[in-house]
Amino acid sequence: MRPILFVNGAVLAIISLPLLLIEMLNTGADLPFVKAFAFIIFIGLGLMLASRGGTIRFTHKQTFVLTASIWVSLVVAAALPFWMWGMPLADAVFEATSGITTTGATVLVGLDQLPHSILMWRAFLQWLGGIGIVVTAIAMLPFLGIGGMQLFRTESSEASEKELPSAAKLASTTLYVYVALTVLCAFAYLFEGMTVFDAAAHALTTVATGGFSTHDASIGYFNNPVIYWTCILFMFLGSIPFLWYIKVIRKQQFGSEQLKIYIIGLVLIIGTLTFWLLNEKETTFSDALLLATFSVVSVVTTSGFAISDYSAWGSFPAMLFFFLIFVGGCTGSTSGGIKIMRFIVSLKMIRLIMRRQIYPNGVFAETYEGKKISYDVYGGVASFVFVFVATFVVFTFILMPFGLDFETAISASAAAIANVGPGIGELIGPAGNYSTLQAPVKWILSLEMILGRLEVFTLLIFLTPRFWRN
Amino acid sequence: MRPILFVNGAVLAIISLPLLLIEMLNTGADLPFVKAFAFIIFIGLGLMLASRGGTIRFTHKQTFVLTASIWVSLVVAAALPFWMWGMPLADAVFEATSGITTTGATVLVGLDQLPHSILMWRAFLQWLGGIGIVVTAIAMLPFLGIGGMQLFRTESSEASEKELPSAAKLASTTLYVYVALTVLCAFAYLFEGMTVFDAAAHALTTVATGGFSTHDASIGYFNNPVIYWTCILFMFLGSIPFLWYIKVIRKQQFGSEQLKIYIIGLVLIIGTLTFWLLNEKETTFSDALLLATFSVVSVVTTSGFAISDYSAWGSFPAMLFFFLIFVGGCTGSTSGGIKIMRFIVSLKMIRLIMRRQIYPNGVFAETYEGKKISYDVYGGVASFVFVFVATFVVFTFILMPFGLDFETAISASAAAIANVGPGIGELIGPAGNYSTLQAPVKWILSLEMILGRLEVFTLLIFLTPRFWRN
Repeated sequence: MRPILFVNGAVLAIISLPLLLIEMLNTGADLPFVKAFAFIIFIGLGLMLASRGGTIRFTHKQTFVLTASIWVSLVVAAALPFWMWGMPLADAVFEATSGITTTGATVLVGLDQLPHSILMWRAFLQWLGGIGIVVTAIAMLPFLGIGGMQLFRTESSEASEKELPSAAKLASTTLYVYVALTVLCAFAYLFEGMTVFDAAAHALTTVATGGFSTHDASIGYFNNPVIYWTCILFMFLGSIPFLWYIKVIRKQQFGSEQLKIYIIGLVLIIGTLTFWLLNEKETTFSDALLLATFSVVSVVTTSGFAISDYSAWGSFPAMLFFFLIFVGGCTGSTSGGIKIMRFIVSLKMIRLIMRRQIYPNGVFAETYEGKKISYDVYGGVASFVFVFVATFVVFTFILMPFGLDFETAISASAAAIANVGPGIGELIGPAGNYSTLQAPVKWILSLEMILGRLEVFTLLIFLTPRFWRN
Repeated sequence: MRPILFVNGAVLAIISLPLLLIEMLNTGADLPFVKAFAFIIFIGLGLMLASRGGTIRFTHKQTFVLTASIWVSLVVAAALPFWMWGMPLADAVFEATSGITTTGATVLVGLDQLPHSILMWRAFLQWLGGIGIVVTAIAMLPFLGIGGMQLFRTESSEASEKELPSAAKLASTTLYVYVALTVLCAFAYLFEGMTVFDAAAHALTTVATGGFSTHDASIGYFNNPVIYWTCILFMFLGSIPFLWYIKVIRKQQFGSEQLKIYIIGLVLIIGTLTFWLLNEKETTFSDALLLATFSVVSVVTTSGFAISDYSAWGSFPAMLFFFLIFVGGCTGSTSGGIKIMRFIVSLKMIRLIMRRQIYPNGVFAETYEGKKISYDVYGGVASFVFVFVATFVVFTFILMPFGLDFETAISASAAAIANVGPGIGELIGPAGNYSTLQAPVKWILSLEMILGRLEVFTLLIFLTPRFWRN
């Protein structure tokens, strides 16, 4: 346990530092951020001191504990300032979880009037969660063999000590890319007319595909197509594999099966929806294209920004967006959901099975990004999809006793597991928020968001008796 | 192609004979059933004569063509009497498909006033479809390797000639069991107060888990709890593996993993719903238990009989029944849906994957009914579930342009692919029917019903270029 506590302590100590900066934005007098900083850094340094010394190496089981505990620590630390600022505990935990998991569902109303400190803390949480999940997906999940992510086992994710510098280098390059995208996005927003504060806050949550805004009207507040297209671009850039950026930078290789299929899929869906909007609504082509592109990219990248209540357009878009909630962006990006890689592997599994149906004695193999897909990967992907959908169904039923209507319950559960944020309908759709829900519903959805963010298995494994043996 | 045409001819010739008996029930003067008989037997005998001689052996590809063509021939032959009787073509095909696939969705209104001949033809179609799918599931699907059914490859489903008598014996024993269950059910209904006609018609559709009734109020017309419990019993008996009956008869072995899990699942769901009904509605325990048991068994066995509009009870039951539509009974029974075996294999796959996550170098294996589950079976099951759900989603969207509301479109598509029959809501729920839908919707749902009945892959394979090579 010692190295796990040490790393958790280090993470807490690091995350506490931005709180001092954020306090500078605070206009109130009771210093909630300084208090939270003091508390978190005290715990963090305490943990580090108590568990220092010795080498840091992790067994398989310990890696599970490490990954899960870091994310839970982050949620607790993230909730503290909200709670100290005066939010009810359920609200503080919901907002913190929604932030750190880059979900973007909010229980806060009247964002435009909130202190900048709180708004910036929300935005920072999403940004931190975004890079956190990219690192988790690149460094942890392949090693843990979750959801077919063993496809991405590289030299640097193997457990050999020799490769650790390479893993560290990979992580730092990823961070550079992430920071560069964020800075680019912030300057773009700034030049397009946002205030410095709005540009910074929205850049942090756009690249993280998070979706928190500083306005109740979300990014629709700015009423500026250029800002919308910028937002589309950077949501998209946050939802593609960060390993791809590294491959482009290092080897100048641009090819990516996942990216290709992702773009083709987006173009087809956006095209269909644009066509539908032109036919059904009185709108110009450029407006229809913007509305369709923004809404589809916002949901598929699991951001959840809104410029229009797409869930009120009609029954075809409502159904389309409901299913799109599950899709997600690419693996190894900041987005959630099932993710494109798993759709590709599933389709290849189906093709393989159909070939074997026609030629039972034939020998066939499918590849992904040039690598042969092993049975473990098929099993991992299929298990992931089943467990993901089952979690969605189970949580939908857990929400039932709290009096939500069908549409709200089913879309809240979907939007939480896929870390999208807004659901479908008046209450929690793009034009609503989660403030009116009962406290138990907020706790339940917080749990579901963290399950979704950790691809379910990372936490599910703790429920198996086998994990606790020896 | 010759042996395929021959078998199709034989099937048509055999199915034409009951039409003569049904004509005797006809009260009109224009002899639609005799005309249909003449037409079908002419085609059937013609096909047999034209393609007679030589041995009857099938390659893998031919078995696909054989299976698909027989079911399509059956639908065409089944629709003919409806059409000759005066129904519009879309209605005739919908009713015939719904019958032969044992779905039980109907476009006919005023059943109580319809001629007995038409009602009996509907009931007979479901009965024929019921035994048809059991034989298909026992003899064809394991050989074709569809949806993990290769688990049930026995001596008798292997392609060796030596074993053919064994396959024939298996089929005939299955038929005996099916006839025996039907006769028992008919006598039970008769003693409980149904007329001979009603008892016969309902027995045919109960054991087939079809759900066609001779009354608009479905079996609720009889308003008799004893009849309801009888119906529950025989729907259940139609939804368990027919190979289990044979094992019990031949070897006196009663154990079955699938049956055990099926019963446990039913008891848990019925218990929950009974508890809910007692809490939410003013009802006695026996009424609540009856309502819950009947409705859950009717949907899970994919029968679709109704004694109450469960889709109007509230949002929890509506959601529960929506998800239950997909579940289905056991493999090798008359029921549709995903089926219990596939849930068991999926759960075991998830357990296997989780064990490998904890011990990446461990060697684990899971068994089903005592047999080791191969990678082919996992792949087959996972592919089936994906393709089944994808078909449901695609057909939901295909239905969208026809102006159905969200609930109707999504539940119609679900009830068709799973061969359940009634959907959710006023229009097509247990208290409604499909008569008011537009003709294209009826065609689309007919196609989806036949896809569901043939476990999708049996027809999907024809869309692959590889199938047509050579």
